[in-house]
Parts: sequence; structure tokens; C-alpha cells
Amino acid sequence: MDVQAGKGDIHHRVFINKSVNLGNIKCYGFDMDYTLAIYKSPEYESLGFEMLRDRLVSIGYPHELLRYTYDSTFPTRGLVYDTAYGNLLKVDSHGNVLVCTHGFTYLRGEEVHQYYPNQFIQRDDTERFYILNTLFNLSETYLYACLVDFFTDCSRYQNYQLGFKHGDLFMSFKSMFQDVRDAMNFLHDTYISVFSQPRIPLFLERIKEVAKVFLATNSNYNYTEAILKYLLDAPPDSKSPRKSWRSFFDLVVVDTQKPLFFGEGTVLRQVDMDTGKLRIGTYTGHLHHGTVYSGGSSDIICDLLDVKGKEILYVGDHIFGDILKSKKRQGWKTFLVVPELANELRVWTDNSSKQTDSGCSDHSDIGFIKSKIKKITYTMELGYGKMGSLLRYGSIKTLFASQLLRYADLYAVSCLSLLQYPSTHLFRAPNVLMPHESAVTSLTKDLPLPDLSANHIIRSTTIKPVTVGHVQCSLAQH
Amino acid sequence: MDVQAGKGDIHHRVFINKSVNLGNIKCYGFDMDYTLAIYKSPEYESLGFEMLRDRLVSIGYPHELLRYTYDSTFPTRGLVYDTAYGNLLKVDSHGNVLVCTHGFTYLRGEEVHQYYPNQFIQRDDTERFYILNTLFNLSETYLYACLVDFFTDCSRYQNYQLGFKHGDLFMSFKSMFQDVRDAMNFLHDTYISVFSQPRIPLFLERIKEVAKVFLATNSNYNYTEAILKYLLDAPPDSKSPRKSWRSFFDLVVVDTQKPLFFGEGTVLRQVDMDTGKLRIGTYTGHLHHGTVYSGGSSDIICDLLDVKGKEILYVGDHIFGDILKSKKRQGWKTFLVVPELANELRVWTDNSSKQTDSGCSDHSDIGFIKSKIKKITYTMELGYGKMGSLLRYGSIKTLFASQLLRYADLYAVSCLSLLQYPSTHLFRAPNVLMPHESAVTSLTKDLPLPDLSANHIIRSTTIKPVTVGHVQCSLAQH
Amino acid sequence: MDVQAGKGDIHHRVFINKSVNLGNIKCYGFDMDYTLAIYKSPEYESLGFEMLRDRLVSIGYPHELLRYTYDSTFPTRGLVYDTAYGNLLKVDSHGNVLVCTHGFTYLRGEEVHQYYPNQFIQRDDTERFYILNTLFNLSETYLYACLVDFFTDCSRYQNYQLGFKHGDLFMSFKSMFQDVRDAMNFLHDTYISVFSQPRIPLFLERIKEVAKVFLATNSNYNYTEAILKYLLDAPPDSKSPRKSWRSFFDLVVVDTQKPLFFGEGTVLRQVDMDTGKLRIGTYTGHLHHGTVYSGGSSDIICDLLDVKGKEILYVGDHIFGDILKSKKRQGWKTFLVVPELANELRVWTDNSSKQTDSGCSDHSDIGFIKSKIKKITYTMELGYGKMGSLLRYGSIKTLFASQLLRYADLYAVSCLSLLQYPSTHLFRAPNVLMPHESAVTSLTKDLPLPDLSANHIIRSTTIKPVTVGHVQCSLAQH
Amino acid sequence: MDVQAGKGDIHHRVFINKSVNLGNIKCYGFDMDYTLAIYKSPEYESLGFEMLRDRLVSIGYPHELLRYTYDSTFPTRGLVYDTAYGNLLKVDSHGNVLVCTHGFTYLRGEEVHQYYPNQFIQRDDTERFYILNTLFNLSETYLYACLVDFFTDCSRYQNYQLGFKHGDLFMSFKSMFQDVRDAMNFLHDTYISVFSQPRIPLFLERIKEVAKVFLATNSNYNYTEAILKYLLDAPPDSKSPRKSWRSFFDLVVVDTQKPLFFGEGTVLRQVDMDTGKLRIGTYTGHLHHGTVYSGGSSDIICDLLDVKGKEILYVGDHIFGDILKSKKRQGWKTFLVVPELANELRVWTDNSSKQTDSGCSDHSDIGFIKSKIKKITYTMELGYGKMGSLLRYGSIKTLFASQLLRYADLYAVSCLSLLQYPSTHLFRAPNVLMPHESAVTSLTKDLPLPDLSANHIIRSTTIKPVTVGHVQCSLAQH
Repeated sequence: MDVQAGKGDIHHRVFINKSVNLGNIKCYGFDMDYTLAIYKSPEYESLGFEMLRDRLVSIGYPHELLRYTYDSTFPTRGLVYDTAYGNLLKVDSHGNVLVCTHGFTYLRGEEVHQYYPNQFIQRDDTERFYILNTLFNLSETYLYACLVDFFTDCSRYQNYQLGFKHGDLFMSFKSMFQDVRDAMNFLHDTYISVFSQPRIPLFLERIKEVAKVFLATNSNYNYTEAILKYLLDAPPDSKSPRKSWRSFFDLVVVDTQKPLFFGEGTVLRQVDMDTGKLRIGTYTGHLHHGTVYSGGSSDIICDLLDVKGKEILYVGDHIFGDILKSKKRQGWKTFLVVPELANELRVWTDNSSKQTDSGCSDHSDIGFIKSKIKKITYTMELGYGKMGSLLRYGSIKTLFASQLLRYADLYAVSCLSLLQYPSTHLFRAPNVLMPHESAVTSLTKDLPLPDLSANHIIRSTTIKPVTVGHVQCSLAQH
Repeated sequence: MDVQAGKGDIHHRVFINKSVNLGNIKCYGFDMDYTLAIYKSPEYESLGFEMLRDRLVSIGYPHELLRYTYDSTFPTRGLVYDTAYGNLLKVDSHGNVLVCTHGFTYLRGEEVHQYYPNQFIQRDDTERFYILNTLFNLSETYLYACLVDFFTDCSRYQNYQLGFKHGDLFMSFKSMFQDVRDAMNFLHDTYISVFSQPRIPLFLERIKEVAKVFLATNSNYNYTEAILKYLLDAPPDSKSPRKSWRSFFDLVVVDTQKPLFFGEGTVLRQVDMDTGKLRIGTYTGHLHHGTVYSGGSSDIICDLLDVKGKEILYVGDHIFGDILKSKKRQGWKTFLVVPELANELRVWTDNSSKQTDSGCSDHSDIGFIKSKIKKITYTMELGYGKMGSLLRYGSIKTLFASQLLRYADLYAVSCLSLLQYPSTHLFRAPNVLMPHESAVTSLTKDLPLPDLSANHIIRSTTIKPVTVGHVQCSLAQH
Repeated sequence: MDVQAGKGDIHHRVFINKSVNLGNIKCYGFDMDYTLAIYKSPEYESLGFEMLRDRLVSIGYPHELLRYTYDSTFPTRGLVYDTAYGNLLKVDSHGNVLVCTHGFTYLRGEEVHQYYPNQFIQRDDTERFYILNTLFNLSETYLYACLVDFFTDCSRYQNYQLGFKHGDLFMSFKSMFQDVRDAMNFLHDTYISVFSQPRIPLFLERIKEVAKVFLATNSNYNYTEAILKYLLDAPPDSKSPRKSWRSFFDLVVVDTQKPLFFGEGTVLRQVDMDTGKLRIGTYTGHLHHGTVYSGGSSDIICDLLDVKGKEILYVGDHIFGDILKSKKRQGWKTFLVVPELANELRVWTDNSSKQTDSGCSDHSDIGFIKSKIKKITYTMELGYGKMGSLLRYGSIKTLFASQLLRYADLYAVSCLSLLQYPSTHLFRAPNVLMPHESAVTSLTKDLPLPDLSANHIIRSTTIKPVTVGHVQCSLAQH
Repeated sequence: MDVQAGKGDIHHRVFINKSVNLGNIKCYGFDMDYTLAIYKSPEYESLGFEMLRDRLVSIGYPHELLRYTYDSTFPTRGLVYDTAYGNLLKVDSHGNVLVCTHGFTYLRGEEVHQYYPNQFIQRDDTERFYILNTLFNLSETYLYACLVDFFTDCSRYQNYQLGFKHGDLFMSFKSMFQDVRDAMNFLHDTYISVFSQPRIPLFLERIKEVAKVFLATNSNYNYTEAILKYLLDAPPDSKSPRKSWRSFFDLVVVDTQKPLFFGEGTVLRQVDMDTGKLRIGTYTGHLHHGTVYSGGSSDIICDLLDVKGKEILYVGDHIFGDILKSKKRQGWKTFLVVPELANELRVWTDNSSKQTDSGCSDHSDIGFIKSKIKKITYTMELGYGKMGSLLRYGSIKTLFASQLLRYADLYAVSCLSLLQYPSTHLFRAPNVLMPHESAVTSLTKDLPLPDLSANHIIRSTTIKPVTVGHVQCSLAQH
């Protein structure tokens, strides 16, 4: 750990789940939204919320909804919306319900049990449970709470288990969900509120000196160009010669349709950069620098750039679309950008200095301990926001946290954190011992496990199988 | 950790991934094979191997195969058989190839790359990759190696990428796989080699004093009865009054068809204990003590026993069929029996006392370190067996280990380890900090996180949403 | 047959596949496009072709395409586009290839064999084979031929089996197909060219006197209103009091998403007729006359109108979406509108008067007969158009014809043909004898089969089963 | 039709749905059961029924069932068993219910409506509706009726909608179905009762002189050999030299797993004729005469025999497994053996000579006609058996009949009927006119349509597309 000690501020540090040797990385890939382009928060979510809300009213939702405004302290990323009952759920990796709200009301244990016998949901039922996994989902998350809050209290509507009734109309939670999703698709990519980040050009230049660099974004060409021009093009009054945003990348791919991109993918086309339209036909040639492509797949990218999956470090913000899929389907090295980590670190640090004893273990008064634990957890959770931490509920890790731990090799507040490390840095994961190993080790001494993060296939001898006599196949037909 | 210090021998200890409070457990469920009934190893696998081998020869495989005998030091549980190329693979949780053998030959890095570009397999392709997950698969694992070894060297056969050719016959790896699977199904449940375990009756009696107990096995009634009579019925010369094996359980269910049992399940029938045959029709009544049932589902079990999923601790040996499914589909508490853990603990302890410095960090000579690491890993792996540890390859955890960590709340060498703990014991998982939390914590001090393993839904207040003015729905139709 | 003799012009006759007793019909349902609203042909298709063609050029297809103009004598409805090889196929109900063109070139037998071994396609492969089943598909059909014609001859492009290559771009037949489909979706509902049909209001009024009437269209509200206003609203100068188009129907449903409508369907919503927008929420009340609904399903329609499936005669033009699905999923009576039937009848009549002997049967010179047959077929086919008849290729019926025979109870050139029959008319299908029945009957005399088109469940006695002694279940437990 | 006039007895005639020119057939394929091997009926079904019945009793069904004996006049092939409600249904091709029995009780119209709203079932729901399509299903069909009959009347059991209840046991119709299916699989291939048919050897010899001959049966080798030895091997006292049954075929394939055989198929293996066991490995060589193969697929057969699908006439008795699939997936010519046709022809002939006027058309008294029609239908139906004809219910064709018409090119009582025709015979289907064609034709004169049963792709010219000016692609890049 002391390797990183000198890296200074913990907010600029890269955290390590699996070892990654930058010396072996030949190619860096980037998502755009929330990775290179950071939206101003909460202004951005607030704007998004208002546009969604207004859209709903414009298609017939009650005008009283206009009085709701965005409260950034309410939603946490990674919540699950139950389209059957309209609840927002915070769950752990197995589907155990940690927190449950209906509108803005927290449900108590027995209420949760009525909705979810065993306080448990089958996460695989994706028809019913929708995971609000990205930062783009934050405004939407808050809107679900507002809708349920409004209709529940509105005297014009009767409350039913699956929604609300007013005369002949039945507003099911399912149809509200569908309306919000439709409104989301309607709004997508229509508003901009991006931070200027002066160090991004420098960052990409540094990387491009030692490796190939590509961009793979689900956005379309026009939006991508607008954002990256803002972030990367030299200002008109700069002394440096004007440099196109495209020159920062060896390859730019838009319309990637991740996560489809990491599987079968789509047809690869060229973008006509004069018109922003796609060239007809499928692109089949070699890589043209300065050309922008549309669609394709991760396999095509590897071919065009002539790199293998394990030589790519892919940096993105979407735990499912960017990280899980690139890791699971392609074996890429992954770097997750988690902007909320800044807040998580702040609260954690504060709490670390406050907390004292607890841990305890005086079995004689377990009731007292439990009650104390609840209080601490409650306080800590509220430190993060009304739905608590992105990553934990007390000692229990959220679904988001468990996916981060499994699929992201590295993670940090920002991709710029990579600037703190030399280009051949070896990020070494601490060896997390299994419980039985810890037990043994604590009995003996610290056991440094060999780190095999690279080049791990080593044996080449043949074991002699155990046979009675000599197994010899005879030439005679058996 | 000191709670367990007094528990004596580490081989009888229960290891903890997630906290479990035995005080909240109202029901214990058991698988039978390799859980209550422990087969004599390696005699059992050796016998199984010979029966499989003989069966193949009887359906036309070359008689030279008869010279192979079982070598218990070769196979490790959890290996993956590639039905396309005939290789046995040890992989990590993402599908990275750690070790690869073709017959008894270890493949080198470049050879592995030719078979598996990026040294990576897509585990989801279950048509192609078969995970040898259970202890029943050990004989089979060794047989695949023998078959490939034999045909590769036999001069009557020509080697092809997908198999071997002899005249007009093509022996594909796929068809050999199918033949072995068929032979497995042919042999299933036809041979017995079970340890007498005198403490099992005591163990079940102790549990039954404090909780309900059920058995759920995929075996049929006759086999189940034979095994459990052997294990549980009082010997004829015993002074204790003769007690039926069935009296140890509140509920016995055979033919469970796990993992189907944890989902939709099948029809629940009664077993006619005179004939061992199923009663016709579906059983719809209440629980009859002393009755044996066939089929059904985990939901039906909860109804019959009147317990909720979280009140059940299910003890089994099958990481997929028993543990993963009961956890993922039903939210049960899970206890994995890992007989190999005895060996893993022995090797780990030995190595702990041998190892010295290494790990180190003298970045100036990374080549030297790498080479040293390889040697250590190699030595350690061979300590476990020819395919290495069930759980690790150096610092990398295997697929099996990662599933154990995710889905088994508790694990131990044997279910009897539970005897070491009082019936209200709280198994407390150590708080595994996330990397960024460790980083903060190491800067400050140790942070005991609240443990919320039970009863964790706590809030009941309502958050006031942020509105402009007061959101009030009017009675007038909008 | 004489019942219909007085019905005059054969072009206004209703043809009968299965008997339908109008006396039992309590509800008539109508599709809109090509059923109530008849588009001016070929002006409409020609306009559609030009818009599609221009759209392709606007997204980058070569400007030379602009020289193609629509030729209504080329496309026949029901052709199959092979997205792999770019061919248009006319096939029979089993998938035997009857005619095959590549661009505008007819392929010979041996060429067809190279593309389609056995001159046969597996129609179920809907990923590859796209059936151009509706009149809306005619412009598209012609465009596929134009595209293949152009690229094949254009010297800038090289011909490959799966498409055309120009530099780094590969124009696959598949991607051309996708581009045309996208262009189709882009254009849908943007152009109008509907015939005024003065008798439609009268027709609907007549029906409404004796039965319920509903409209179920996939078009949206605004388009539907525009069309039906034009067709049904009384002209301003008319003496009759102004009557809304909506008053002609008991129920109007737009956005039906047939064929989904005939299965699970979608949420039923009310249309706000002031704005044309959907009311939020699901409609759950009773039928409101004059209200327009969106979505829903055929089951909901039956509930709202209180009719059973067999009491509905559904009139539509889409063999798959309207007729096959309503018949197969719901058991509705079906009436297919086939505008091309006017042309088919004309050619058939012409040929009937021309043809003479043939049929023949002089087995001694089968070669001569075959050659003559080919000539006749060829001539007849061209009488229908360049791809021949919608329904036949010589003695072989097309896929379209066989579906028409199976799923449409009645069919006619126009829905107005129903005006020729009294509202209680019994359409009696001739009894089509099976080959073995014909053989017997020709030996004896004409056998009039009982017609059971309605109310056919007749028996109510119980057959005594054959038992040995008396089967009596005893009260004693077995 | 006069071509066949001289063919004598109608029971030996081949009936024609689609034209087939034997002169183009290069290969004849045969199923074995009920095609070459004819079982003694009803002895065979009776034996089967008793074994099934006894098996059920042996697994716990009430012994009173033993009193039921087989009544061959009850079951008709092609009935549908509703596993939800235990009814036997006779349906038409769309799923309209024609006859419905519950046990041995015919249900009246209103009762049918309660079970099946709209008197209609969705045939595609194969989870629920099981089609009893083969002659092997006859005993089973009768058994379902017996079971429902027994439990309905037995005072020990209460009647429920989905089955019967007795104490804690619920006998659902679904579980009875499963028990019978299991019993069927248990019995399969264990009993023999085959007619000696002296003309079969002659028949196969004749065919083998002019074409290739293969056998493709789902039975295993031992059963196949037993049956075919009995049918084909020269009797020991015959003067002709002893000839093996295998010499009658160019290729014998057992274990075909039709209908899978007509799709992806399975591994092709050789049978070791000494042991009856399969050789290991996949067979990859050329055809060896006298060798018996196992598994494989229709594609492999075409390769081994070097024929194309359209050159094969496949003769079988299973409308789905043999005929529909070979036609739909492979485009083979098909010949369906329908033993019941002998009875159908007999009844039809009898009725033809009895019937007089009816059909009629005196619209003034439709009630009288309907009532008369019902009586006639009822009488005719009972002439066929208690569930009526295999093919019709009055004027309505059954599902079986409609599949026979669509998928069988030819059909007959026995495959031996082919002996009546020369090996180059052209079976010419009468041209079945479509209703609108009949209408025109009856106005003019008889129109002999060109028969294109073979070699029908004829055109090779190119149509000039309609263009404005000349479509010329320019060499310059567009």
C-alpha cells in the first residue's frame, strides 16, 4: 500500500480490485458520457428531471406535478424500481431488500415483508425489476418517487395495490414506468451541461504517447462531436496550433449500442464527417486515422487496432454496459469511473474519525448492540443521502458494490486519476484471503501470495498417467 | 476471530463469508450425498472410474483403456471440459484460463493462445464448456484425460483438431464427452462406499431439539433409504431402542431434481414406504411426520414446514445445484460442505510456515520477482495435486472459489463442524473493506462496521419531497 | 352456385372458402388501410417508390438511382426477399421456388439450384427470408429489384455473393434490406392518395342496422381521423345533417399493433380527441360511444362489445396480420380484401375463353406436352404481370393463395361486395371432396355433405364403455 | 381420372393431393412401423391397452381399472387430449371443437362453451393440448377415456375442475396424463403382433430395380431386425436362396429420432450387427451396403445416397414425424399410409349409395334442413366409430385431414398400393380451382391448367426496368 502513499490526495487515487500492469496495456478505450465528459451535478440531473416532468404533464399527467423540483439528496444510483408495486428498492447482490420506499415513505420491516415475502426479490425477473444503474437514471429515479408520492396523496385517485384509479382510468405503476421510459427516450441527448476539464487534452496526449487510444460511445456523431469539440479543441486564442478533437484518438466509434457492441455488434459504417450521416454499406477496410465509425463490435475494434482483449484497458462509467460486459464477454481490463466516490470517501473519512469502539462482542447483551448498530447505520446512511450510500448498507454491500468488486479491475473518482501514475505502473491488488486462509494465516504469519496478474501459464511437462502395465495401443484393429 | 479461537482444530471450524445468526435459524435442510453421507475417498472415485472405463470398453472403446487406473492426485473439482477440443481447463471467475491440459500434457502459453485467443473462454457457452462441479465428477474428469491421452498416442488413430480418425470412424471430443455422460447416467446410484460416521445421529438429534430438520436429495427412495439406514439406524446390538432413520427428520423429500427444485419444481407425491413406489396423484395435505415425499419444490417445503426462506440454513455440497440456486432463487442461508478443504488447509498451513519474504516490492528487478513467483506458485500448486488447488492459482481465485465466496454464507470440511458451536451462535463475517475504504481506514484507524445480518429494515419516517409551494392535488378534474 | 348467379358482375361477388352464415354474425370489424380506404393504384405505389428511392439517395446511395421509376407491372404481392442473396422469390406453400429474379433477371433452373439446393427454401427462417405480404410492400419490392439491378451493372462495384464492394465499403444485400426497411419506417403514414368511395358510408350504415361495427387499425389517431373524415363525413354542402365519422362505428381502436393485438395486446388507452394524444393510464370502464381508444387486444374488444369470437366477421387486407392471426388465435370469421383479384379475374376470364384442348393425356409424347405447358404457363403468367399471378404459377398455388384458402373464410375484390347480399345470407362453401372421396363419388353419384357451419355440437348421450363385469369403484380404500 | 379406372379395387388405389411423377423419383424411403410392418388391429391395440392399464395399476392406480377392456370402436386417431380438463377433442384445422367427450360422455354445446369459450382451442399451446396423432396412440386414447370415466363415477373421489380428490391426494388430469405417457415409454417396443404380408418382399424388390431404397425408423436395431426378419427373410423351406432382410435396402438407419432427424439430426454411428450395439465414434465414410446405421439426419442420407430431396418419395404413417417434417424441412415427396382409409372408404361408399336429396337449398325452411343435416351427420359419424371419422365431421375436415391434404403428396391404405402402378407413372393431381376460379370457369368452360409438377423454372430473359433516361452508373466516385 505504501507504493501509493505518495500519490497524495485520496480523491485522486486509483483503487484496485484486480492487479493490472499498465506496462502490458497497449490500448486505452474510453466511453464518453460521465467518463471523459463530466456533467455538472446536480444542475444536470435537475434539468433532466424538469424536462421529464414537463414531458409527462404535456402528455396528460396532472399539472400539480410541476411543483416538484429535483432533490439531489434523495436518489442514489443503483436502486431498483419495482414496476409492479411502484417501490424503489436498495438491494444487496443476492436480492435481499435493504431499504424500500414507496414515494417518499420508508417502509418498515413488516410492510416490506408484505410486498416481498422473505424481504427478497428475484433479480433475474427483469420484466418486473428495473435497475437504475447509470447516472442518467438519477432524475428518473427521483421522478418515480414524486409520481407515487403525488398519486398516493391525491384525493381524486383511489389507491390500489398495482396503481391508482380515477373514474374509468387506471394508472398502473407499470404504465407510469412505461411513460417515464418513453419520455426518457424522447429527451435523450437533447441537453448539455458539461464541465470544462482543462486537463483532459493533456491526459489523452500523455496516453497516446505510450498506447493506442479509442473512444466507443453510444451517442450519435453530432452529439459526440459537440461534446468533444468543447472538451478537446484548442481555444481560438490559444497559442498552440489548432488541433482537431479527432486527432486525440486512433479510432472513434459512435452509435456503439453497448452492451450489444460487446457481443454480436452491428454493421460497421463510416460517418461522413461533412454531413454527420452514415455512409451506406459496411466498412471493410483498414483503420483510417481521423475517420469516425458507427456501430461495429468489440471484436472489430480489436482487429482494426490489432490488439488483444487483455491488452486493452477500458474506462467507462456504466457498470453493466461498459464494465461487466467488456469483462465477461471479452476479457478486457476495466476501469470504472465512479463520480459518487468523492462523496463516499468524504463520508467514510468523517465517520472513521468519529466512530469509536462498537465492534464489541459482549454476547450477553446482543439486544443493546443491535440497537446501537441500527443507530450508527442510520446515521451513516443519511450522511450519504436519503437513500444512503451507493455501495453499502452498514456491513452489507449493495448490488452495485458487488458488481464493482467483481467486474472492475480498477476504479476511481475520475479517469484523470490515471495521471497520477507512471505509464508502466503495476497496480497490485492486495491479496484478499479467503476466510479459511485468514484463519490459518492469523495462526502463523503473513503469507505473501504470488501475484500472477500476467503471463501465468507456466507448466509444460507431461504427467505420467497411472496405468497397470504399459498402456500401448496396438496396431491391430481392436 | 477470538470467538472461534477456542474451537480447537482448524479442520473442524466453520468459515464465514456472510454473517449468519443461528439464533434466527428455524430450520436446517440437508442434501444427502457428500453432505450427510461421506464416500470413502479415493476408493469411491477409483471404483467409479473403473466402472465408467469398463462401460466404455463394453460399448466398443479400445480394450487398451483397461490399463488406466485412477490417480487421485490428478483431478481437481471445478475443472471445465472443453467438448470441442478435449482440453481440461482451470479458469478464474471471468473465464481466464489458468491451467490447461490436453490428456496429461500441460499446454504452454502460446499453445493455450492458439486454442483460446486472449487465453479466455466465454463461460456462458454451456453447449461447449461443461463444468465438472461435483465430487461425483472426479472420476469422469480423470477419464477425459485418459481418453485424450490414449487416442493421441495410439498409432491406429490420426489426430485432428476436433478428435481422432480411424478409417471411416471419427471420434470427436464431443462424442467422447457424450459417451462418458451416458455412461455416467447408466452407472448412477449403483454402487456404495460410504463411511460410517458415528456422530451423525447425535448431530441430527441435537439440531432437531432446536429447529426443524429436512432432507432434500436428488436420489431416489430406495437408494436414500439404504444410505440413511446405514448411517442412522441404531445397530441391532445397541442398547438404545431401535429408531427409524426417518424419525431424525421432520420432512424427507427424494427425487428433488435440484436445481429445478428451487424454481418451478415438480409434482409432489407420497412415497409408499412398503414398496418404495410413488403414490399416484399430487399430495396436497399437511405435513405427515414419518412420510417420505418425492419431487415438489422449495416453495412447497417452506409451506409444509411453515418457515420462511431466511429462516432456513441449507447444507449441501453442490455449489451450483444446492448453494447457488437456493441462495439466488430463494434467499436461503447456505452452508457448503467442502471435503477438499482438509487438504487445502494442510497445504496452506505447510506453505505458511515455509514461505518467507518474497511478495516484496523491489521494483528494480521485476523480472527476478516474476520468475520467483512462478516457481513458488508451481510448487504450491503441486502441493495440492497435479491440477493444483480447488480454490486458487497463486493469487488468482478459481471460478469455484469465487462462487463459494458469493453464494455460500458458511463453509466447512464437514457438516459436523456445526457441532462445535452453540445453537444460538452468531457467525460474524469479518467486514471485508472495499479498496477505497481500506485506503481511508489505513490512514485513520480500524473501523468496525455495523453488522446488519438480521432485521435490517429500520426507517419509517417520510422524507418531505422538495416542491415549489405546496403540491396539493385539487379535487377538480384536471 | 345459382344462389349467387343473380349477383351480377363477378367482380362484385364474394368468394367462399368456408361457409359463413351472416345470420349468426353479430359484429363486423374492419381494418382501415386497403380495406375501407382504397389507395389509388399505381399512383400510390409510384409515389411511395419515389419517396423511398429519394430517401436512400439522401442517406448516401448513388444518385443514379433517381432515374428508376416505378413499374407497376413488375411486382406481385407475396414475393419473398432473400436478404442473403438479394433475390426475389415466388414460392409455393411448402417453400418450393417457382420464380426467382436477381434484379430484373429471371434465373434459370440450374442457377436457382446453385442458390437454393433442391429449389427449396425453409420459410421458417424468418431471419433470412422476408415475406412482402402487404400492398404497402409493393413499392419496396420494386426497389429491391432496382437496387440489385443497379449495383450489378455498375462498373464502380464488384459483384460478390453476398453483395457489392467498392473500395473499403461492402454493400451487403442484408444491409440494403435494412436501409430500405428503415426508410419504410421513416416514411410510414406521411402521404395520402385515397380514392373517394361514395358507397362506403351507405355500406357501414346498412351493417350498423343489423350488427355492431368496429374499426381496428394499426394507424395512429391523426392519420385515421384524416382518412375517415375524407371517406365518411358528409360534404359541407350535403343536405343530410352533418354526421361525424365516429358515429359510423360502435368502437374505434387505433394503434392496434396487429398481430400483437390478437395475442397479448397492449395497454388500452383513451384518445383525447381534442389533442389526438393518449390519455394517461389504462382504460378500465365500459364502452363509451364516440370515444376512440388506442391499443388493447382482441379479447378486450370482445368484452367491450359483448360478443364472442365466432360472432365476429373481420374484414381486412393483410393475410398475416389481419386474417391468419384473427382466425388462428381467436377463431374469428374472416373476410379478406384482395384488390388484385380484379386483375386476376380478368386474366383468368380471358384465358378461359382462349384455352382449348391441352389437358390432354397422350402419355406417348410427354415431352411435347411439357413444352406446351411451359409455353402456356409463361403466357398466362405474363398476363398478370412480370412476376405473374398473385395466386398461381400454372397449376401450383402460391404461398399467398394457400394461406388465403386456409385462413380467409370469404374473400372479394372489395369489402363493398358484401352490399350485394342480404344481411342474413348464408355463404355456403362447396364441399371440396378429398381425393379418395372424389374417387368413390365419381363411381356412384353426387354426395351432398351436411353443412355444419354453425351449431355443430350435437351429441349428448353417453357411450357405455366396454368392461369385463361391472366397473364399480368400491368405497373401501384401495 | 380414367387413367386409374383400370386399377380396379378402390382400396388398392393411390390418392393424389399433389402431382408426383414416379419417373423423376430416384429413391424410395420407408418408415417401418405401420408402413412396412402392419400390426394386427385391433388385437395389437387391445394388447397395448391392457399392458398400459396393468402398468398403471401396478404403480398404484385402483385395481377396478382392470375391468375395462379395449373397445376399438371408440377411439379415432388424431384426437386431442386436453391435459387441463381431461377431455378428448375432435377439432378442425383452426382449432374449432367438433366433438368433445369427458370420459365416455359427449358434451353438449353449452357444456363445451363452458370449457372452451367460443368452442375454440389454441392448438399452438402444446404444453396443454396433446395430439394423439399415431396409431400407437389409439390404446392410450381409450385409456384416457376410461380413467376419466372411472374417477368421475367413483364415490371415493370428489370431482374438481382440474381432477379428482381423495383425502390428501389430488389426481389432476395433468398427472394422469403424465403417468400414462410414462407408462407408454416404459412399454414401447416390448410387444409384437405383426401381420405376415407376403407381397412386401416382392414390392421392395420391384422398387429396388428402378430406384434406391432406404429404411429410416425410430426403432432400435434389435426390434427392427426382429420385425424385418419376420417380414422379409425367406422362409427356411423356401426354394429361393436365403436372402438377408438387409439386402432389400441400399441403406438402413435405425434410432432416427424423427422429427429431429429432418432437422439438425444426431451423430451417425454404425451398428455392430453381431452385438446390436453402436460402434463408437461418428461414421464419416461412404455408404457400405449391408451396413446398418444409427441416428444421422435426412441431409446425411441424401449425401450417402447421392440424391436430392425432390428425388425422394418418402413413405410413412406419421403425419407429423414422417410427412409434415420431411415435406416442410426438406421438400421431399411424401406418401402417407392411412390404414383407416379402408374403413373410411367403406362407410363413404355405403353412404353414397344411401344418401339422396338433402343438400337442397329450400331457404324457406332452414331449421328443418339443419335438423336433418344433424341427423345425417350423426348417423354417418357413428358409421365410422364412436368418435366418428378420422377425416371429417360432416362437411368439416378434421385437423388430421387438413394436414394430410397439405403435406402428403400421395396417400393410400397401404404402401403396397404402389404395386398397382408402373414405375414411371405420373400421378396427376386434379386441379383444385380456387372459389373465384370456379366461378369464372363455370361461366365459361373447363380450364385445364398447365401442370408444372416438375422442372418448372423456365424464364431466363431480363426485363428492362423502367427508367427515366438511361440508368448508367458513372465511373467517377459519387
